[in-house]
Amino acid sequence: MTKVFGIEEIRAATASMDLTSVMEAGFVAYSDGKVVVPPVGELLFEEPPGDTHIKYGYIRDDRVFVIKIASGFYGNAALGLPSSSGLMLVFSQKTGFLESVLLDEGYLTNVRTALAGRIAARYLAPKEVKAIGVFGTGTMARMQVTYLSTETDCQNIVAWGRSDDSLRRYCDDMAALGYHVTTTRDAREVAEACNLIIMTTPSTKPLLMASQLQPGTHITAMGSDTPEKQELDSLILARADIVVADSLEQCLSRGEIFHAVRAGHIAAAQVRELGGQIRAGTRVRTSQDQITVADLTGVAVQDIQIAKAVCERLSS
Amino acid sequence: MTKVFGIEEIRAATASMDLTSVMEAGFVAYSDGKVVVPPVGELLFEEPPGDTHIKYGYIRDDRVFVIKIASGFYGNAALGLPSSSGLMLVFSQKTGFLESVLLDEGYLTNVRTALAGRIAARYLAPKEVKAIGVFGTGTMARMQVTYLSTETDCQNIVAWGRSDDSLRRYCDDMAALGYHVTTTRDAREVAEACNLIIMTTPSTKPLLMASQLQPGTHITAMGSDTPEKQELDSLILARADIVVADSLEQCLSRGEIFHAVRAGHIAAAQVRELGGQIRAGTRVRTSQDQITVADLTGVAVQDIQIAKAVCERLSS
Repeated sequence: MTKVFGIEEIRAATASMDLTSVMEAGFVAYSDGKVVVPPVGELLFEEPPGDTHIKYGYIRDDRVFVIKIASGFYGNAALGLPSSSGLMLVFSQKTGFLESVLLDEGYLTNVRTALAGRIAARYLAPKEVKAIGVFGTGTMARMQVTYLSTETDCQNIVAWGRSDDSLRRYCDDMAALGYHVTTTRDAREVAEACNLIIMTTPSTKPLLMASQLQPGTHITAMGSDTPEKQELDSLILARADIVVADSLEQCLSRGEIFHAVRAGHIAAAQVRELGGQIRAGTRVRTSQDQITVADLTGVAVQDIQIAKAVCERLSS
Repeated sequence: MTKVFGIEEIRAATASMDLTSVMEAGFVAYSDGKVVVPPVGELLFEEPPGDTHIKYGYIRDDRVFVIKIASGFYGNAALGLPSSSGLMLVFSQKTGFLESVLLDEGYLTNVRTALAGRIAARYLAPKEVKAIGVFGTGTMARMQVTYLSTETDCQNIVAWGRSDDSLRRYCDDMAALGYHVTTTRDAREVAEACNLIIMTTPSTKPLLMASQLQPGTHITAMGSDTPEKQELDSLILARADIVVADSLEQCLSRGEIFHAVRAGHIAAAQVRELGGQIRAGTRVRTSQDQITVADLTGVAVQDIQIAKAVCERLSS
């Protein structure tokens, strides 16, 4: 029988699980070539504007396969509704039967993205984090920081945003969680104060320049997931000692690495894949002066892993 | 809030609804170019063998969009399980939110396919049906016949099958519904006795030949839905006075029309589209001696229409 799980029980389950190792295993399986991921399905709407993406795939010889549906309807805000929504479906690889429906409203996508940021920091961030820089003030700007608490004790945030209102809300919300937040609209201030910087915006123009960067900085860029989006000056990747992609193949067609390779600033062969680094099991950064960049565009194996793990927990 | 509906309430709802007009409106919208249908998503499995298809789309200016997931795992029979399964998801075109999950296990796909057969018969079959010929003995061989009861009082069936066992079961099951069934393994017997013939097999070689056919016969071919499958001798389409496709575009890449056009037996321009004929509102057959063929390969608008209508009924 198909089981249907709602957002509240999904939230409760994820809070009590070690999802980092689940996500790490997913990245390793992906880099080992064990994951089957067909092209993403897409439905586009004009009136009102919106898009729905269908991502699906499976790990070979695994028990299940997963289909994720995620929508973004940007006029929802005017209706007082969240713009993003979605669900995940878990099926048996043995029978094709639907086992579970996860009515997660997009929450598990946020969790798996935050977990990828945590893992990137684990392997790439400097040991001593002075302050965490955050570009953006939305859900990911919050979750990426809170998910770093397993990797660093640092509670200092320098937040960059476009709107004073959203910066103020961000500041208040993070202060309530115990963080010390300063806000700015000048990227230079972030780069000078922080040696762990997270990019979470949908910008289509670079927000942070290579000339602003201090040695010893790690950047996790997870905002740019299409060919149009770009948050980092491509010269940052040229200057970086280590550049890591969640999916090398995908990062050659979208995200920061795509722009840097296309501009001729780096060669694809210089880019390492996250799963391979996790498999090696050691911190990738070898000196506290290195500049490192992790480009996270989001891969279906993350959805597969989190949906599978949450269903197992909720069904047990 | 998302509503989740199970198979029993879905069956009960469809039994009490006039889905024919819903399906007719869908075919008309499709032929009027109002339906957006992106390419079908596909997941293939080897061990055990199986396939999952994701079909999705919407009618412009409609209230909802629909995603259907359908799986066929052919080793399930050995486990005592049905090989096909699936579900339909209904979302708001205004917000992208998931409104309803229809856990129909593939049932609504069968219903919408049977409804298309009913509609084809309504516009194309001769007024007096002597006997209904059926190739195949599975679910569709049953549902296509029972769904014809709105179009003809004829209760005589000549059933063709490959296996004596399955013919016997078909005969028993249909007799229990009041039909008089004779069985055969000779296509010629079907063609001689019947002037309404339904093809429901997954055959990859023609089962019925042009030389066997009587004047005044209508054939609904719904088994061949891939480029490999073929149930009719292509010369039947050449001999036919009227050939109708559910989707002209799709029938040029799969099904009976695909084979006949590729063999040079008919031109694409001779084929009419079902929605256009429905819009005209009159029986397409103009003489009781004409030979007519309807090639039904299945179009996403059928899924959209049935899912939408069933959800509206269940939510009201």
